[in-house]
Amino acid sequence: MRISELSVRSGVAIPTIKYYLREGLLHQGEQIAATRAEYDDSHLRRLRLIRALLDVGRLSVASIKKVVTAVDDPSLPMHVTLGTAHDALSVPVEPEPGDEWRTARAQVDALLDDLGWEVAPDAPTRDELAHSLVRMRQLGLRIDLAPYAEAARRLVAEVEMDTIPFDGPRDAAVEAMVLGTVLYGRALDTLRRMAQEAESALRVSPAR
Amino acid sequence: MRISELSVRSGVAIPTIKYYLREGLLHQGEQIAATRAEYDDSHLRRLRLIRALLDVGRLSVASIKKVVTAVDDPSLPMHVTLGTAHDALSVPVEPEPGDEWRTARAQVDALLDDLGWEVAPDAPTRDELAHSLVRMRQLGLRIDLAPYAEAARRLVAEVEMDTIPFDGPRDAAVEAMVLGTVLYGRALDTLRRMAQEAESALRVSPAR
Repeated sequence: MRISELSVRSGVAIPTIKYYLREGLLHQGEQIAATRAEYDDSHLRRLRLIRALLDVGRLSVASIKKVVTAVDDPSLPMHVTLGTAHDALSVPVEPEPGDEWRTARAQVDALLDDLGWEVAPDAPTRDELAHSLVRMRQLGLRIDLAPYAEAARRLVAEVEMDTIPFDGPRDAAVEAMVLGTVLYGRALDTLRRMAQEAESALRVSPAR
Repeated sequence: MRISELSVRSGVAIPTIKYYLREGLLHQGEQIAATRAEYDDSHLRRLRLIRALLDVGRLSVASIKKVVTAVDDPSLPMHVTLGTAHDALSVPVEPEPGDEWRTARAQVDALLDDLGWEVAPDAPTRDELAHSLVRMRQLGLRIDLAPYAEAARRLVAEVEMDTIPFDGPRDAAVEAMVLGTVLYGRALDTLRRMAQEAESALRVSPAR
């Protein structure tokens, strides 16, 4: 298809498509004449991936570039590619000086040990969770993270992993994992806020 | 305490505190001399709330202002205040023209009906979830949202709601709910990515 059809079918404006081509987010089409390139379903699919990462995952163009570069590199083991996507999705946090931070970070490490989860020692998610714990503690919120960890594990292990086509081509599996991380995460977060609205309607009398 | 002590104890720089005072995010201290105001624990607590909404919730200053204005208005019923916080946390999405959007939105409404959740008909979370569904469908991801809804409901109903001091002062309950929405949501999201890393390490042989 021509770029105009690719634009209509993806809902992405032509100048934006050209920008993604220049930035290397989208692979070049097949040049069939000096001024005409031909695009196919792989371009359509990639545009939808970029759009999902942009507007659902809220990733920057630079982060998306890292993710698609990893997805496109068949020499990378799948878990390395997935790790790149996870790193891009992590909210960067700075470890804070002092005991509060050290205690929270030690609590995260102990939780992962207890759970038996294999998470890289330098995974940014460890600092991210420690950061949430520090803020909770400063605000006097005390909560047991175990039910959260168990809910997360069950959704990932019993629902999401079954949707990944591990026996198909590497690309498809990696893409499905990256997208699952973003889209199911967003859906769960939205459902949590809906549940909170519904549950507080039950518990709080409208007069308060 | 003086503003300098408030700054040290909250970790927020003095010019930033002055900015929050000007913008009305933070209530004024008690003026005890022409050039000196006295601050107390309520200021410290509010600064920690602002910081949590800023750096964990990623809310804009304008959104935080809406939230704290609602928290501070005792004439608002608690569920209205909470609704304001939920609206501020929603990622604004534009309904898209066409059947895809209408189908997804109808699916969201049907899901909430089935669940029996009382969620406002114009709640932005409905469009937000529809948006995620449209993206999933475009990318060929098919997933049953029921286990996500059930996990969300259980965490909210069985863990989070019990941490809210409903029998204390209104402020404390509202603040705890708003913070819970942000902080437990972030922790759950981080744990999900950790679970995905751990689970994919189990399923994907490093050679792939």
